[in-house]
Amino acid sequence: MHSAAPPDGEGLVLALDVGGTDIKVALQDSTGVFHGLRRLPTPRDRQAPGDVIVAETARLLGEYRALASGVPIRSIGLVVPGLVDETAGIGILSANLGWRDYPFSAEVRNATGLPVAFGHDVGLAGEAEMRLGAGQGLRDAVVMVIGTGIAGAVFSDGRRVHGGGFAGEIGHAPVPGGLPCACGAVGCLETVASAGAIGRRWASHTGTDNAGAREVLAAAAAGDPTACNIWDEALEALATVISQVTAVLGSEAVILGGGLSQAGPALLGPLAGIVNSRLSFHRRPRLLLSALGQDAGLAGAGMAARDLLVPA
Amino acid sequence: MHSAAPPDGEGLVLALDVGGTDIKVALQDSTGVFHGLRRLPTPRDRQAPGDVIVAETARLLGEYRALASGVPIRSIGLVVPGLVDETAGIGILSANLGWRDYPFSAEVRNATGLPVAFGHDVGLAGEAEMRLGAGQGLRDAVVMVIGTGIAGAVFSDGRRVHGGGFAGEIGHAPVPGGLPCACGAVGCLETVASAGAIGRRWASHTGTDNAGAREVLAAAAAGDPTACNIWDEALEALATVISQVTAVLGSEAVILGGGLSQAGPALLGPLAGIVNSRLSFHRRPRLLLSALGQDAGLAGAGMAARDLLVPA
Repeated sequence: MHSAAPPDGEGLVLALDVGGTDIKVALQDSTGVFHGLRRLPTPRDRQAPGDVIVAETARLLGEYRALASGVPIRSIGLVVPGLVDETAGIGILSANLGWRDYPFSAEVRNATGLPVAFGHDVGLAGEAEMRLGAGQGLRDAVVMVIGTGIAGAVFSDGRRVHGGGFAGEIGHAPVPGGLPCACGAVGCLETVASAGAIGRRWASHTGTDNAGAREVLAAAAAGDPTACNIWDEALEALATVISQVTAVLGSEAVILGGGLSQAGPALLGPLAGIVNSRLSFHRRPRLLLSALGQDAGLAGAGMAARDLLVPA
Repeated sequence: MHSAAPPDGEGLVLALDVGGTDIKVALQDSTGVFHGLRRLPTPRDRQAPGDVIVAETARLLGEYRALASGVPIRSIGLVVPGLVDETAGIGILSANLGWRDYPFSAEVRNATGLPVAFGHDVGLAGEAEMRLGAGQGLRDAVVMVIGTGIAGAVFSDGRRVHGGGFAGEIGHAPVPGGLPCACGAVGCLETVASAGAIGRRWASHTGTDNAGAREVLAAAAAGDPTACNIWDEALEALATVISQVTAVLGSEAVILGGGLSQAGPALLGPLAGIVNSRLSFHRRPRLLLSALGQDAGLAGAGMAARDLLVPA
């Protein structure tokens, strides 16, 4: 789109992926292509943490209407982190961004006059991955986003598992060797296996400030025993959860996204080895890399907004 | 029913629950009451392990027709163990009973001329537990049957998770401290937490032949350190899997059945304590005892057979 919008008979949707630091926003046309994709700082208001997101959404709609130069924006897709009730359109809780039981769908609809698809960021990222990405054609799969923390979306028999908004908290599945977690529990997967945790553990060992999982993997490849240990513990913990999930759900595949998935074969190879060693007659889940990457959440928001426009 | 059948305008269904040792069989009337419930030894034929079940089903239909004295038997519900494709009506694999890719639905229909509901024993036991038993009103729950082994049925968003027939193998979810399992894997939950495993571990410690989980619990209550250890390891392993499942699926409840559930509060109390200690913001699953008990599989078979008769 850049300056001038292409003619799009089916109109555009506005997609927003609200994160702890940034909002990603773009127009999406009916072929799935994004236009004018930007990152803006997530606005915060301690007194009105939901209202400030709604106001920003309405403001961005105005900006993007100008950019769309006459092609109508037909609906809005908004995804947020935390606990979400998608059916009711409510953000139940974001510890980080501060809202509690905030009616996003209704408020955005009131503020913009457009139909609103509202959902969980990783849940809808997973939907997009299943429909358009690495999960195409699969019915039973788990999408894991391994970055600062670990979040997941679970698909069984072709449907996403909601669990009243509580499903997919795979980063807070307890594992042996897990450490005290910011969530209050002890032993959560993400305390040893997130990219963030791997970097932190290495930083605390080496006394550096800013280490990432990338440095740990490089040091492990060079034979550093502490780095090997940190990396092995992360793989063991991931394998524990993946093999448990597979036994319980019969998953065909686990799709890995987020920063850690950039390790590619260095992650997939050894992880598949450990997972396979723990299973026998079970389905053997294929380990796949996310195809949509960082934009999966935005793609999910756009997809959900577009779904509103399709006659059932 | 006993000798004479009550008038039942909606007819009867024949329910069969095929186990490794016994077939349980009964007529079920439209109010859910069983008539003529019996246990017969499961017939085995190494060359034709599926055919011999079908022949026995047809034979039993004849016997039960006589018992029904004129009230029509309208459909058959048949549940079997192992891996099952319920949609296709196929027993994919029973390592114990010997079939592989056997088309039960089609063969029983051919042999009897009646509509056939075919399913997984624990899967349909779980369906019955959810619809008629301890799970009434719940949408997200796991039913665990803890006996010789551990089997499960998983319900999410009000539906049973099938996973291509592979879901629910919760007894073969790997846990820390798990032992080599007959399935070929190492560390399966049922190697330390089934009633069978608890009894075996105690028998091997005490040198007795026939110990059950009941004896271990009694010895633990009397302060025997080995018994305490065996019991604690079983609880730890169960709590590991339950807390993992809860984090991933957002389960509202875990419903415990099978022999071990007869321990009642001695099981539920300490288990809930460990599970709660591992969770924070997650849903806290209620731990419930099965309401249908040993007849849950038969109830599920009858329910599925009855469902065939209800106009959609």
